[in-house]
Amino acid sequence: MSTHADRLAALRTQLAAQQLDGFVVPLTDEHLSEYVGDYAQRLGWLTGFQGSAGNAVVLPEQAAIFTDGRYTLQVREQVDAAHWRYVAVPQTSLTDWLGQHAPDGGRIGYDPWLHSRAWVDEARKALAERGAELVAVDVNPIDAIWRDRPVPSAATLAVQPDAVAGKSAAEKRGDIAEWLSERRADAVVLTALDSIAWAFNVRGADVPRTPVALACAILHADATADLFVAPKKLTDAVRQHLGNAVRVHDRTAFAGALGQFAGKRVAADPGGAVAAIFDALEAGGAKVIGVRDPALLAKAIKNDVEIAGHRAAQVRDGAAMVRFLRWIEGEAPKGGQTELSAAAKLEEFRKATGALKDLSFDSISGAGAHGAIPHYHVTEESNAPIEPGLFLIDSGGQYVDGTTDITRVVPVGPPTDEMRNRFTRVLKGMIAISRVVFPEGTVGGQIDVLARQPLWEIGLDYPHGTGHGVGAFLSVHEGPQRIAAPNYPGGGPTEPLRAGMFLSNEPGYYKAGEYGIRIENLILVEQRRIDGAEQPMLGFETLTFVPIERDLIEPDLLTADEREWLNAYHAETLRRIAPELGADDRAWLEAKCAPL
Amino acid sequence: MSTHADRLAALRTQLAAQQLDGFVVPLTDEHLSEYVGDYAQRLGWLTGFQGSAGNAVVLPEQAAIFTDGRYTLQVREQVDAAHWRYVAVPQTSLTDWLGQHAPDGGRIGYDPWLHSRAWVDEARKALAERGAELVAVDVNPIDAIWRDRPVPSAATLAVQPDAVAGKSAAEKRGDIAEWLSERRADAVVLTALDSIAWAFNVRGADVPRTPVALACAILHADATADLFVAPKKLTDAVRQHLGNAVRVHDRTAFAGALGQFAGKRVAADPGGAVAAIFDALEAGGAKVIGVRDPALLAKAIKNDVEIAGHRAAQVRDGAAMVRFLRWIEGEAPKGGQTELSAAAKLEEFRKATGALKDLSFDSISGAGAHGAIPHYHVTEESNAPIEPGLFLIDSGGQYVDGTTDITRVVPVGPPTDEMRNRFTRVLKGMIAISRVVFPEGTVGGQIDVLARQPLWEIGLDYPHGTGHGVGAFLSVHEGPQRIAAPNYPGGGPTEPLRAGMFLSNEPGYYKAGEYGIRIENLILVEQRRIDGAEQPMLGFETLTFVPIERDLIEPDLLTADEREWLNAYHAETLRRIAPELGADDRAWLEAKCAPL
Repeated sequence: MSTHADRLAALRTQLAAQQLDGFVVPLTDEHLSEYVGDYAQRLGWLTGFQGSAGNAVVLPEQAAIFTDGRYTLQVREQVDAAHWRYVAVPQTSLTDWLGQHAPDGGRIGYDPWLHSRAWVDEARKALAERGAELVAVDVNPIDAIWRDRPVPSAATLAVQPDAVAGKSAAEKRGDIAEWLSERRADAVVLTALDSIAWAFNVRGADVPRTPVALACAILHADATADLFVAPKKLTDAVRQHLGNAVRVHDRTAFAGALGQFAGKRVAADPGGAVAAIFDALEAGGAKVIGVRDPALLAKAIKNDVEIAGHRAAQVRDGAAMVRFLRWIEGEAPKGGQTELSAAAKLEEFRKATGALKDLSFDSISGAGAHGAIPHYHVTEESNAPIEPGLFLIDSGGQYVDGTTDITRVVPVGPPTDEMRNRFTRVLKGMIAISRVVFPEGTVGGQIDVLARQPLWEIGLDYPHGTGHGVGAFLSVHEGPQRIAAPNYPGGGPTEPLRAGMFLSNEPGYYKAGEYGIRIENLILVEQRRIDGAEQPMLGFETLTFVPIERDLIEPDLLTADEREWLNAYHAETLRRIAPELGADDRAWLEAKCAPL
Repeated sequence: MSTHADRLAALRTQLAAQQLDGFVVPLTDEHLSEYVGDYAQRLGWLTGFQGSAGNAVVLPEQAAIFTDGRYTLQVREQVDAAHWRYVAVPQTSLTDWLGQHAPDGGRIGYDPWLHSRAWVDEARKALAERGAELVAVDVNPIDAIWRDRPVPSAATLAVQPDAVAGKSAAEKRGDIAEWLSERRADAVVLTALDSIAWAFNVRGADVPRTPVALACAILHADATADLFVAPKKLTDAVRQHLGNAVRVHDRTAFAGALGQFAGKRVAADPGGAVAAIFDALEAGGAKVIGVRDPALLAKAIKNDVEIAGHRAAQVRDGAAMVRFLRWIEGEAPKGGQTELSAAAKLEEFRKATGALKDLSFDSISGAGAHGAIPHYHVTEESNAPIEPGLFLIDSGGQYVDGTTDITRVVPVGPPTDEMRNRFTRVLKGMIAISRVVFPEGTVGGQIDVLARQPLWEIGLDYPHGTGHGVGAFLSVHEGPQRIAAPNYPGGGPTEPLRAGMFLSNEPGYYKAGEYGIRIENLILVEQRRIDGAEQPMLGFETLTFVPIERDLIEPDLLTADEREWLNAYHAETLRRIAPELGADDRAWLEAKCAPL
């Protein structure tokens, strides 16, 4: 086993051999995925960083790792300060840092299969200001030195039936064909794995926690498509489902196929497709139209079947959560439970539903100070006992009819006044988002502040967005919808919220070294009728129904409206979840859901 | 006098002569000013539109005028629907519309002295998608047909003394020289008129309502500068103030001077400087660095002297407003007053201070339904009598020590319950902005919603931003600070609010055809100490002190905190303004400022 220091040294040797003065290491794959297979975990292999978002830059004399506020603590625990500088984004962007530190006249390498065209354009410009050059590599220098690199998954695909998808793949291809015609385009390249899974009504098992399959696709204006996927991954059932209008090719044929569009107008997403795709299209003589992936918005606006499926999944998932919360409330005070044992028990309750396909992400099971790391990833090494204080559990399940994501906080022993004050302020923010009504056209970034104001009042805040989009048996994080400040990393703040979108609603508060608080429900954008309204209005339907711990609430901090919301929420929780439970769990839930 | 229809026909003939298939007509000048001199009022001359923001596009078969929500009603009143289509931005951008309507393969002209480089890049791309071409013209086709076009103003410049500017021009040039060194740049081109006025500590009288002078400037890394301005505009006092480090040239020498930077690195603002400047620099062999105008942020963050000056100007301006409000309250019910007579009377009160240099914009004096046009411009033709209902007055003054901007609403006769309800909701929004505390790094777009929520609750909203930046004896609208939704036209939403910035706080409500409500104070971003705060916090100090009409307030709609804010505001108003007033006005003010 080489150390991370060995790997960094080996990379520098390799860079010299490739005549590069630096290299950019993103945490993504050829599909610009957020969660990636082991074969693509180059950043983790090089640095030890286990978070889900980050980038590194290696120069001859220095190396830097770029992470956002969620990983401020984690990156310092996992990545060696002797070899790496920690850089906070968005305060300092990778391209700004490169512009300042790249050697004059230097050649900075990047793998064109791992960066968007938009990123390459921006980085090239920033480097040019410095007199340095951005250079596409043919061979990723990390792959050249990573001896035991895992091979990509060979898992088979599964059909996502129309009965849960709500719309057939043929209809979706028809919609995209119409979209192409409107732009007088001949074809569109899809590379986002969830876009492909959505468009073809298939699911996969190649990426942990996200039911997508490694594939690329080209959809045409005649509503046919080319799907590029390893042949051994296709069962007969999937081939039959795809039908004659979908031509199947080996995934290795994709790059070559991009060269076959001379004189054609081909759409690709500059922010979502990698630079190598644009390069290949242009080299083949295609006229490339840079537009957003047409599946992105269509996938984000759920149809009635997907919404009904999600509600069913939430009842199932909510019952598992209630059983877990009762269990941990009983077990934690006895001692002997750990972050890992709790996460395992929760997974056991979810599996007991008989419908769990996978978790929707690695559970964030954080006891005490670990709860203050918003995206804490528990490992055998970090595993902490659950002791008096707060225990934070952020988790979710993948079901055929829905993807869930929920965070609750469990007090172990009596909480302090400060904990109750902070928890109640976080709750006030969560309720403010739950209750807001807003005009059509409003973007998530406009309402984000409503979740923060109760904390701001006393000089506190949380270092992450308030809400992310959620897929339908797909990615637990999906765009373009989100609720976050306009300058929060990841962008997309100008996308209006539209009826049918799923989002999370998850304000928090983190006291470094002591405890973390986050309360997370999923919500659905819905139309609202208001008497006398002068424009179409929207609001949120809450989708998650699991009690919010009353012992952590300081009732005097709630307004009458907030208390009414909470009592109605608990009454509805009881109505929906109780029928799924045995007598003991039901009695426990009734007590938890009593009016405050 | 040619009609607007004649002018449109003449323009089409001229376009044909210049072999153009279309032309874009912005409302700006060579400095991308918001308010422009008569010589640059091409949009108004062509279309009749009198608003302060808009664009037109003329194609062979159709013509369109693009305005935002503030001008929805006004553009329909002033621009002939028989010849012009009305297009709403941001719903449809000019470039999107051009992309859809420009003829295939057509040549669309633009004047490179009237568009930013950023605009040209974007528009060129949008047109290329359509197969059309954006073509820079040597001669603006409107200038070619506009027979009686006014000549630019020849007004002289005045020195802005250090005692009110708070920082000498030499110090400012030193700061910019340091900024250039940090970027390893040799020079920066400044063309924004208020940036030039700020950097050189001069003021002018070339543009109505904005004390700027028509000039261009190049500042160098050695802290010297070249100022391009018509020689007859410079008095001896101004020449002496500018000193030896500032080389003065005729304004006509500017374009040529841009060609003298071969091999040098020259900074220019892609969003703030016109495309022709970039073209000239590049043609001369300069390396152009596209960065934001360095004066923009420096000018926005006021120093202590400017802040103290502004407070003094507000006392003076507030006293004039109080005298006006008492006068209109007495006179309006008698009948016989009009929008113009009221605006004239208010100007008279401001002039009576003995310190008024100019109004800071044409007063928006809107009776009844005219108040529902947010940027209503009263003319002899539109002038309406002030009758029972609501009268809205939005006005401001230019003083050597400060620029003011205030809106109040006056009830004429008893207001309806609906008016009081709407007014109180607007007031709640205004108070919410006044009271908010927020962490450093917060952008205006994040807090905008706080002003809207009381209206959203009942399905209402207002079609403009909540706040704009304000200059120090400069533009009444300045960037980069603002409080507006991220997708509101004009951009800049990612600029954090910083201590020292002046902003307006002006939510409103407009009932088309009936009445308009807007309550506007100016506010100052200031640091806030909060016990236990975990990060530096900011808040707003209110700068405007003029009573808010109690007869329009429904007290039961206010929370205890809001009522407390209002009472404290009125107490402070009395404390600051009463000493400026005679006995009768003071008694009136005391009654208006009594606790609610």
